[in-house]
Amino acid sequence: MTERITVVKIGGNVIDDQTALRRFLKDFAALDGAKILVHGGGKLATRMAQRLELKVEMIDGRRVTDRATLDVVTMVYAGLVNKRIVAGLQAAGCNAIGLSGADGDIVRARRRPAAPVDYGFVGDIERVDDRLLARLLDAGLTPVLPAIMHDGAGELLNCNADSVASALALGAARIAPTDLVFCFEKAGVLRDPADEGSVIGEITPASFAALRTEGVVSGGMLPKIENALKAIAEGVRSVKITHATDLCGTKGTTLRAAAAE
Amino acid sequence: MTERITVVKIGGNVIDDQTALRRFLKDFAALDGAKILVHGGGKLATRMAQRLELKVEMIDGRRVTDRATLDVVTMVYAGLVNKRIVAGLQAAGCNAIGLSGADGDIVRARRRPAAPVDYGFVGDIERVDDRLLARLLDAGLTPVLPAIMHDGAGELLNCNADSVASALALGAARIAPTDLVFCFEKAGVLRDPADEGSVIGEITPASFAALRTEGVVSGGMLPKIENALKAIAEGVRSVKITHATDLCGTKGTTLRAAAAE
Repeated sequence: MTERITVVKIGGNVIDDQTALRRFLKDFAALDGAKILVHGGGKLATRMAQRLELKVEMIDGRRVTDRATLDVVTMVYAGLVNKRIVAGLQAAGCNAIGLSGADGDIVRARRRPAAPVDYGFVGDIERVDDRLLARLLDAGLTPVLPAIMHDGAGELLNCNADSVASALALGAARIAPTDLVFCFEKAGVLRDPADEGSVIGEITPASFAALRTEGVVSGGMLPKIENALKAIAEGVRSVKITHATDLCGTKGTTLRAAAAE
Repeated sequence: MTERITVVKIGGNVIDDQTALRRFLKDFAALDGAKILVHGGGKLATRMAQRLELKVEMIDGRRVTDRATLDVVTMVYAGLVNKRIVAGLQAAGCNAIGLSGADGDIVRARRRPAAPVDYGFVGDIERVDDRLLARLLDAGLTPVLPAIMHDGAGELLNCNADSVASALALGAARIAPTDLVFCFEKAGVLRDPADEGSVIGEITPASFAALRTEGVVSGGMLPKIENALKAIAEGVRSVKITHATDLCGTKGTTLRAAAAE
């Protein structure tokens, strides 16, 4: 039986850099115990959409996933990027298995309501099949998921990869104690965005409220931390936000339900 | 335990036709017992390569799979087409799971030697992991495979979908009695290519030799029948070549090791 599970999310910047990706996959393959990888897509999908001369529709600064864009992200995230990562992990001795949410119906999403703003084929996670997850982990497999899910009625949906990672960690936590690691291109949550040495070592719900009020944390980091704290509150053992080169290390920002003793 | 397995190969013409594909997936979902689907890619990959203005290199009338072409077939076959089929089967109540050869290391291929002709990233099947196949089928899952395999050393390889179907049927036959069905856009092997009513009901190794000598069977049908007869000789219970609309029917051409009594 599975004794503990590590869920790792890897961001687009690492995927875009072949050397960084190879190094990351080697570190990931070397992680002890059962594990799950969730990946973003990087700039490949944007570049592909440009090469195909797709019209990019933006509403309030956010991209709309129309049918043609959904096809591109499905091709690039669930096809090219996913299979490259899986083949790379296999070569590193990790028995990876790439899965969109539709595969084995492992993650189901609900299309985001069209009102007040219709962002197209964008979904929010509805449920993770932890029974199938447990079966795969018991078989020694390492699930590798892009953020392409389905609604169970035949529609694929583009989801947020951070949210997918949190949802999978919560599903995994129903099987065994689970640790979640968000890997990206920064050393952690920084007090000063320009200073990689200013990593905030620990964030709790209380300290997060203060950081937000002071304006230390803002922008894209806000939903990442909110996701992380929610995961902790709902049963994930630990969450770390760190640089992709620190997967096996001890740097980065640790999220806790309460300050460490 | 799995009592019998049906392996179905579906060709590109059906995949290109949304209505035909929907009908086929409904029929496939309704098939009794354990099953596996292998699919080609249709013209989507060719169209995508054209839109991306990829240089098409041909040697002796055959396309070379260079790195850019491999990326396109990986995106289209293992990404877009595979996930559309999986989501469609899920909606039809069939618990499909899309897998390239790299996923779970389920099918390994060997890159075709570069001499006398280097066709690039093209592979021939080396082995099918029937242990993993049995596990997936026992879990009530229906594997859905494009013809994108891997070499175990990190390289993805473009393979022939008919050969993938035969190899999977042979792997399945080690688990339970297995029937293989090649579905395409014709009613079966035709005596007269212009007459859909001229289906040859049965082909044995002996009658195949005669059909070939007479020139009744030629072109792309030759490797298909050779693959089918080889599968029969090596342990697949039955092989049928038929129209995609006849999946559950009794028309088409049946391949046998010897003439029926």
